[in-house]
Amino acid sequence: MAGEDIVVQLLALLFVMFVAARLLGRAVEMVGLPGVIGEIAAGILLGPSAFGIIDPANVDYGITLEALAEIGIVVLLFSVGLETRIGDLKRVGRAASQTAMLGVAVPLAVGTAVLMALAYEWHAALFVGTAMVATSVGITARVLSDLDMTQTKTAKVILGAAVIDDILGMLVLAVVGAVALGGTANFLDISIVVGEALLFVVVAITVLPRVVDRLAGERKLMEGKKLYDRRLDRLKPVQTRQSAFALAIAMCLGLAAASSFFRLAPIIGAFIAGVAFADVERRYRLHDQFEPVRVLLVPFFFVLMGAKVSLTAFAVDPSLIVLALGITAVASATKYYPCRFGARSLGRGPARAVGFGMIPRGEVGLIVAAVALKAGIIDSPLFSVVVFMSLGTSLVAPPLLRRAMAKDGHEHLLNGERVAKSREWRPPD
Amino acid sequence: MAGEDIVVQLLALLFVMFVAARLLGRAVEMVGLPGVIGEIAAGILLGPSAFGIIDPANVDYGITLEALAEIGIVVLLFSVGLETRIGDLKRVGRAASQTAMLGVAVPLAVGTAVLMALAYEWHAALFVGTAMVATSVGITARVLSDLDMTQTKTAKVILGAAVIDDILGMLVLAVVGAVALGGTANFLDISIVVGEALLFVVVAITVLPRVVDRLAGERKLMEGKKLYDRRLDRLKPVQTRQSAFALAIAMCLGLAAASSFFRLAPIIGAFIAGVAFADVERRYRLHDQFEPVRVLLVPFFFVLMGAKVSLTAFAVDPSLIVLALGITAVASATKYYPCRFGARSLGRGPARAVGFGMIPRGEVGLIVAAVALKAGIIDSPLFSVVVFMSLGTSLVAPPLLRRAMAKDGHEHLLNGERVAKSREWRPPD
Repeated sequence: MAGEDIVVQLLALLFVMFVAARLLGRAVEMVGLPGVIGEIAAGILLGPSAFGIIDPANVDYGITLEALAEIGIVVLLFSVGLETRIGDLKRVGRAASQTAMLGVAVPLAVGTAVLMALAYEWHAALFVGTAMVATSVGITARVLSDLDMTQTKTAKVILGAAVIDDILGMLVLAVVGAVALGGTANFLDISIVVGEALLFVVVAITVLPRVVDRLAGERKLMEGKKLYDRRLDRLKPVQTRQSAFALAIAMCLGLAAASSFFRLAPIIGAFIAGVAFADVERRYRLHDQFEPVRVLLVPFFFVLMGAKVSLTAFAVDPSLIVLALGITAVASATKYYPCRFGARSLGRGPARAVGFGMIPRGEVGLIVAAVALKAGIIDSPLFSVVVFMSLGTSLVAPPLLRRAMAKDGHEHLLNGERVAKSREWRPPD
Repeated sequence: MAGEDIVVQLLALLFVMFVAARLLGRAVEMVGLPGVIGEIAAGILLGPSAFGIIDPANVDYGITLEALAEIGIVVLLFSVGLETRIGDLKRVGRAASQTAMLGVAVPLAVGTAVLMALAYEWHAALFVGTAMVATSVGITARVLSDLDMTQTKTAKVILGAAVIDDILGMLVLAVVGAVALGGTANFLDISIVVGEALLFVVVAITVLPRVVDRLAGERKLMEGKKLYDRRLDRLKPVQTRQSAFALAIAMCLGLAAASSFFRLAPIIGAFIAGVAFADVERRYRLHDQFEPVRVLLVPFFFVLMGAKVSLTAFAVDPSLIVLALGITAVASATKYYPCRFGARSLGRGPARAVGFGMIPRGEVGLIVAAVALKAGIIDSPLFSVVVFMSLGTSLVAPPLLRRAMAKDGHEHLLNGERVAKSREWRPPD
């Protein structure tokens, strides 16, 4: 059976990817770099550009790797959400929305202008500008999580900005897509699409925590009638914890899928689902329970990302490298400075960290570029430049963010305490 | 991008599968049946035979579901291996090998004879007989794991027999395949294939535990030079535990892939990898660490299995139902009685449990049937009968095994103690 053979081949590939990610991740950590860089490097080595062991575009197993990677990054963003309370998001709302808005407008305007100045056609320029809009918070979340600093105010601003950024990015893509592909933009259609997405986020953020509280909250156990449940709870801590974990997985998968039906990235839905569970996180040790799932699945996302780096286009036309480096620099600067300015209320150090944290562009930029490539608006070399930019910004940001957080992050925790280094010890419930 | 759309669709499907499995699993547990029955039922409901929400044969996402399901069952068998020490396997070696040999010979002979008596062509009869040979230990492992009885002597005999059974099953398939498909069997070729598989199992079982001990064992920390590591270990229990977990995942995936290269089921390799970690399991709480991964992934295997049930062939020709029920009965009886006899040294009750535990045929039977279908040796209705048998035996075994274990299992623990109900509490390391 062909299906069986592919599954066996996949097991072997997953083994190779996991081991390579783990070894290189550890190796770069030893020299003080974030582990995620090692995992991306593992992907580049295993991918078509080097050893050619994994091929993200393979017709047999490509989708499966894509899906596993997506589940990995969804689980990571859910875990980050677990450490973000709604109150936290509200408290940073102003800084986060300023950061997001500046971080969308400036790259779009400057990116389009630069491409047009380089004599590219305006449709192509506009699409490259659009590909420079959306921050991919996956890498930043990973660096913050590795540093155990997802609880900092800086982290909350970045995550809040990422949610708004994604909505704005979608708006830009809708408008640009309509203008460049279909002639004129229908204002009503676009407002409906954006309105639905906004409604989804608002409803999810306000309603879900109550649902979770109803299903798994402390309050339920405080009601007299439910005292029996509570006693049961003491008897079966494992089962209860497992049920809470299963509920969390269901909501994480469900919201990730739902958010993409509203044209938002699945990781945004997963993050919101995590936020909904933040209040019961301690009670059920959800973060600890998700730890093994993260260890297993998250590396697949970053290895696959590395495997998507194609070096061939640059080997064919070396002048492309200059363009790619230039665009990467523009993309980095046009995110960093506006976002740093948007987050200036946090103080100089944390504002810099926010700026660095917003630099990475990831899958959203790649999707925009792929749409434009398919429609014939950009050619294959320019597509490779966008891919390079997307990965270049992802590689540039982690060391900068890490240094900024190490210098200033610890001084600016949201709740005024230093973050404990180990997550293992918890006060008994 | 089509790929993106499929990933989103997959997230939605995984959500539906997970929720349905969880709800139906819990529901059947409330009425005293094993949860796995509910998960298979969820699959039947979601599959093409009922609501048609998931289609295991879908060209876009079928392989991905197959791969996720495989990872799930591989993780489950690894976990079962974690609770099986080599000494345990040695102690039950005689009973296990008798059980396996009788459980292979009788279904093959009787199955082939029955089909020939029903006027089927001898090639077809031989293939159906072969499809009745291999026990799929996944379901049995799940039931034992749900009952927290993987530590019983009965469980060890079943698992030991499953390893031997798989090797014998492969031998039968090699011979039958050679005879039925290629004319005569080349004795030398077959001996080489079987010899390689045997060598793999023997080497893995003897060498791996030493490798694990070298990498993660207690002994390493006892060496004077390594006292520094030990102190480090105390400081970073989480990191160390995570590293051990990552090592376990790597070995689990690696051995699963490797064993299928030796034409053994991946779950056999995963089980052997688990056995290799049994000695360090307690130290790193590996069983607990794998728990969330099991909760997330194992249901996908059983839901997918349910989704593969096709009821259409039986609606077209109702007389097939009689044949399918008959073959299922023959398959159950020809495993149960010989295996019960093979395990008679355990005493009457446990021997019955072993007999019931060996009844389920799973993916191996389906693979054999698919090979025969593809080669034109059996037709589509007879293929459906084999699928029915494979699933019928899987559905029949759990309640019987559960009842047998509940009655006699507790009295026959390998180490003379009753199994603790909760896994949560552990003596401090």
